[in-house]
Amino acid sequence: MTDIASSDFGAWLSPSELNQIRSKVPLVYLNLVPVKLDTQGRLEAVALLLRGKSRTGMIRSLVAGRILLHETLREAVCRHLEKDLGPMCLPVLPTTLVPFNVAEYFPIPGSTLYDERQHAIALCYVIPVNGDCQAYDDALEISWFTPQECLLPEVISQLEEGHQSVLKQALAHLGYLR
Amino acid sequence: MTDIASSDFGAWLSPSELNQIRSKVPLVYLNLVPVKLDTQGRLEAVALLLRGKSRTGMIRSLVAGRILLHETLREAVCRHLEKDLGPMCLPVLPTTLVPFNVAEYFPIPGSTLYDERQHAIALCYVIPVNGDCQAYDDALEISWFTPQECLLPEVISQLEEGHQSVLKQALAHLGYLR
Amino acid sequence: MTDIASSDFGAWLSPSELNQIRSKVPLVYLNLVPVKLDTQGRLEAVALLLRGKSRTGMIRSLVAGRILLHETLREAVCRHLEKDLGPMCLPVLPTTLVPFNVAEYFPIPGSTLYDERQHAIALCYVIPVNGDCQAYDDALEISWFTPQECLLPEVISQLEEGHQSVLKQALAHLGYLR
Amino acid sequence: MTDIASSDFGAWLSPSELNQIRSKVPLVYLNLVPVKLDTQGRLEAVALLLRGKSRTGMIRSLVAGRILLHETLREAVCRHLEKDLGPMCLPVLPTTLVPFNVAEYFPIPGSTLYDERQHAIALCYVIPVNGDCQAYDDALEISWFTPQECLLPEVISQLEEGHQSVLKQALAHLGYLR
Repeated sequence: MTDIASSDFGAWLSPSELNQIRSKVPLVYLNLVPVKLDTQGRLEAVALLLRGKSRTGMIRSLVAGRILLHETLREAVCRHLEKDLGPMCLPVLPTTLVPFNVAEYFPIPGSTLYDERQHAIALCYVIPVNGDCQAYDDALEISWFTPQECLLPEVISQLEEGHQSVLKQALAHLGYLR
Repeated sequence: MTDIASSDFGAWLSPSELNQIRSKVPLVYLNLVPVKLDTQGRLEAVALLLRGKSRTGMIRSLVAGRILLHETLREAVCRHLEKDLGPMCLPVLPTTLVPFNVAEYFPIPGSTLYDERQHAIALCYVIPVNGDCQAYDDALEISWFTPQECLLPEVISQLEEGHQSVLKQALAHLGYLR
Repeated sequence: MTDIASSDFGAWLSPSELNQIRSKVPLVYLNLVPVKLDTQGRLEAVALLLRGKSRTGMIRSLVAGRILLHETLREAVCRHLEKDLGPMCLPVLPTTLVPFNVAEYFPIPGSTLYDERQHAIALCYVIPVNGDCQAYDDALEISWFTPQECLLPEVISQLEEGHQSVLKQALAHLGYLR
Repeated sequence: MTDIASSDFGAWLSPSELNQIRSKVPLVYLNLVPVKLDTQGRLEAVALLLRGKSRTGMIRSLVAGRILLHETLREAVCRHLEKDLGPMCLPVLPTTLVPFNVAEYFPIPGSTLYDERQHAIALCYVIPVNGDCQAYDDALEISWFTPQECLLPEVISQLEEGHQSVLKQALAHLGYLR
């Protein structure tokens, strides 16, 4: 799909550099909802990542991450999907860059979404994947859920806080929130 | 706001004419979510109409209705809001005609939304109203609900079937479905 | 892709029946922009149909047509693309039914788009096609144009009047109108 | 409308701090198209700012600027409009944060938009203003242009490079690019 070397997009930032930047400007993020569709484009299943977390046990999440310097949005969408779902996930990139929603994360609990690390502004896209998905990077497992299963309390409650909201918005946007 | 005489848009159709058309083509509808916003455009409340129904008691609904012949979408939005919320409701029409969703109603229960009368394709818009709203036409009452109240079982269960889905989509689109 | 028999969607209407309906209600239409994308989802080319017209010579157009009774939007998108581009065009249906624009056609020249036949409300979608496209039905030829070529005076001036506007909106939506 | 003290959003960054950040991450921007609408929400005019530029003479622009740390998008929209159009411009904020487009600016001329200063990702919104607009800050003049006037070569050629594209996208989105 793409052969993007991360070095193309400026050096990776050290944790201390990233923390310093987080204290000065909001970061641009992607929140991606990987889906399987039928031949008429109807939603069949959503992929959620399972990760281990020291304090809270297991947690599920969407594919999320930041845009690197000099990286286009399309390159960043491919990079994050391939990092989390594997190089054979074969994402179908959207025709337009207009997101289905923009999620605002703040490091202060309140009326917006919460991210303890930072102020982030996330562009949210639904991305069909046609290939084989395998857990890569720090994900333990990738699980597929039907639209109905996504909304079960035992599934939605395992999701990272802000991702609950983004997933419900995605399901609503696709016509699967009844 | 507007002074549209319904006679501008071809004659009203008799019930038998309308039934005959419904047996041949889908109708174009509007599903409108009237809202109050604060000064920064954040959702404060949603208006739902209360109507009497012979068989099922009371039922709540969004503002809905069809587009008449030779009527623009903007004229139809104004006409339906003023018919249901009164001539002083002062709607703020959207800058764009792109709807937040398109709802498909079929007269057969199934995976799409259900309307026993017809196959209808409804363009869904959120419309802020700045004026005084009063129950007109066949509505008994207009009630305002906060985003949280809209989702209470006792409110959502009173809504016309398809309108439940459209209201949830609207709340998701506005960022109020957590 | 689909095996929709048109008979599933009520009888086809005779020209006189259709004319009678057109004198009473607006019709729901699709305006489809078939495109080829590269692997990152960027626009490579747009397909335009070439048709013969008795009075005006040749005319180019998008894929357009109405929604039949009891037909879903997704079924109608597939049907119209396969009718005009052939059964092997392999359309990639959108994840969402939210159109990039809604085009209003009126039988009276004026500030809206013009269709001498009818008042039509057209949902506009960009549809990538991955297969082989061949002229079917009453199209003489299918030609592919790069985004830049689409806007050349000799191309845009050959387009059906309303389709000029819809094509420009599509190019703008995809980020290709500079 | 708002009484946002800039000090609420972390200290302003010194030019050298901002340059250092620009060398490490993309910045989140707003590109705002201020408009006057008629009572049915149809576009009447677009406001463009006139600024002096040492090398190139006069240049026109949209309202643009970055999101500050801990500032919501809605707060940033208000702040930038009031800074450029004055405190009495009375913006009507959108119901949704979904932008009509996302513009990518890179400091390298190429197939994306060009900003010599930085890699910026701009959320683009059309914002109606109901009040009195006056040139503030470093703008020399605010001029209103009808949709047709916006596209005149003498107007569009005066616009900042990337803003030409964003303005055309806005006009297309609102149905005014024929």
